[in-house]
Amino acid sequence: MKKLIDATDDVVVDALRGMALSHPDDLQVDLENRVVLRGRPKEDGKVAIVSGGGSGHEPLHGGFVGEGMLDAACAGEVFTSPVPDQITAAIAAVDRGAGVLQIVKNYTGDVMNFEMAAELADAESGTEVRTVVTADDVAVEDSTFTAGRRGVGGTVLVEKIAGAAAEQGMSLDEVTEIAEHVSSHSRSLGVALTSVTVPANGKPSFELGEDEIEIGIGIHGEPGRRREKIAPAREIARTMLEPILAELPGEGPVLLFVNGMGATPLLELYILAGDAHAILEEAGVEVSRRLVGNYITSLDMAGASITLLRLDERTTHLWDAPVATPALRRGI
Amino acid sequence: MKKLIDATDDVVVDALRGMALSHPDDLQVDLENRVVLRGRPKEDGKVAIVSGGGSGHEPLHGGFVGEGMLDAACAGEVFTSPVPDQITAAIAAVDRGAGVLQIVKNYTGDVMNFEMAAELADAESGTEVRTVVTADDVAVEDSTFTAGRRGVGGTVLVEKIAGAAAEQGMSLDEVTEIAEHVSSHSRSLGVALTSVTVPANGKPSFELGEDEIEIGIGIHGEPGRRREKIAPAREIARTMLEPILAELPGEGPVLLFVNGMGATPLLELYILAGDAHAILEEAGVEVSRRLVGNYITSLDMAGASITLLRLDERTTHLWDAPVATPALRRGI
Repeated sequence: MKKLIDATDDVVVDALRGMALSHPDDLQVDLENRVVLRGRPKEDGKVAIVSGGGSGHEPLHGGFVGEGMLDAACAGEVFTSPVPDQITAAIAAVDRGAGVLQIVKNYTGDVMNFEMAAELADAESGTEVRTVVTADDVAVEDSTFTAGRRGVGGTVLVEKIAGAAAEQGMSLDEVTEIAEHVSSHSRSLGVALTSVTVPANGKPSFELGEDEIEIGIGIHGEPGRRREKIAPAREIARTMLEPILAELPGEGPVLLFVNGMGATPLLELYILAGDAHAILEEAGVEVSRRLVGNYITSLDMAGASITLLRLDERTTHLWDAPVATPALRRGI
Repeated sequence: MKKLIDATDDVVVDALRGMALSHPDDLQVDLENRVVLRGRPKEDGKVAIVSGGGSGHEPLHGGFVGEGMLDAACAGEVFTSPVPDQITAAIAAVDRGAGVLQIVKNYTGDVMNFEMAAELADAESGTEVRTVVTADDVAVEDSTFTAGRRGVGGTVLVEKIAGAAAEQGMSLDEVTEIAEHVSSHSRSLGVALTSVTVPANGKPSFELGEDEIEIGIGIHGEPGRRREKIAPAREIARTMLEPILAELPGEGPVLLFVNGMGATPLLELYILAGDAHAILEEAGVEVSRRLVGNYITSLDMAGASITLLRLDERTTHLWDAPVATPALRRGI
């Protein structure tokens, strides 16, 4: 294993320390609880948004903390849920008296620990905490770490749009309803070109042949639908978009999110994005907003995912709202 | 070779097409000349800034086109200089009557072609074109593709700071002088953990042992100073910072730029950034600005580079100025 790390046991805390030093004006990092917080906390009376999950998906979630998006992100160990104490510490730090929304990817450990944290926060301080669970991955019905579908790329879109709603002063009911709407109108599929090496394991999580790709991979290297031979990007884009379009609810324009898994160059992501645009145009689907880059990754995995979100006027407006985080910044 | 591409001969034009579709409001792409232009051109009377070079280093340079940074970026084939005709087309498209500054990385082909383009532009339309050549890589004195030092990470900082100066309406003399100052006050060194595979070659450009890293690698996989065994990130950071600090001119605070080569996860870049901060603090060097992420890459190479720029009041102010490009965005 070749990685730029100091000690396999300390990768998360070392990365959080580096993150704090790299963004001293934008972020505060509670190293003890491993919680990333805004440099300038939100005003009283606004809903706060907390997310988090296993590390190894950077910039998700810590890179999305800031004005117009998250108030706090809890970093678990690599590919491991944060514990309830971390999450209650985050909730206590960001509660501004208008309630807290938790955005949680659908993995059994995450869902359990965020639920437990919500109960603890209610019992300890009476904070009203709601939870929206994302489950946008159409690859498999149940998976290694989930009952039901996995939460993947759609999570980024839920965090952006719910974050904008909270920033604009909407109520906990409204912010929760919007987050649920975005979650239920997002569909994703990922492909892996290489495996992923978790630092603590020191070797690749699975083997993939010289000319093989895995269709429907999870963001922890969980198995997908099937393996195929590598093919031109436009065929891979079609393989990804067909099941997504088959399950995407609603009518009208979409947001196209082409996401890199961590080790795939931007050059390739733009080629894939061009192919996805062409396929969607052919299918009569209007792309009205886009996001291309490495936003929800799987350590050193090469590959990409595509997410479609069915937009409406309200979600388009919230997507366009200003945001100022280390990983996503616009209009501020 | 496993890559998300359609045809090895078309990777650059396919990526540019995808880039145009992904940023329809921010960019215009002249596909015939392979030039990336601003969506909203600069006002008359301001200096325009053109850059470019071989493709495969994305987001450099096309991702830095936008308000507060570049006016145009010329994309050559992968790891190959753009040709003079592309560059003269870019100059003609962005000239606003106040002259044009070219920012060129020091590679023989690039320097020659940008110089030829400057002469052609002057002959054809009388446009005054100046050229600043970056050569910040302390790894080797001459290299595979250069007489003198290679231009690497410092180029990003020159583009940002000269771009801000031009946006603020400074004269061609002033913008050129600032670009030269930033270029001469930047020093970089890179390390590779893996090789790089150029699509047209289909196989890795060099071989690196299971536990080996290459110190002083170029952004095209050119050989560095030596090979070493993989070591903790803080030792690698020290190996990079020592020769940089030994050659960094001036006194006072620095900008620390920790850059990923393309296939290294952000988690690792933050660990390296944390280590670099600690080493600089130990050395009594104040870090007053930072940039961490994948900004000048080498296709699918794993690894990182560190650049230090000695700041002063003027360059700090220009670094902080608003910028709105696909890859770097702040304050707009």
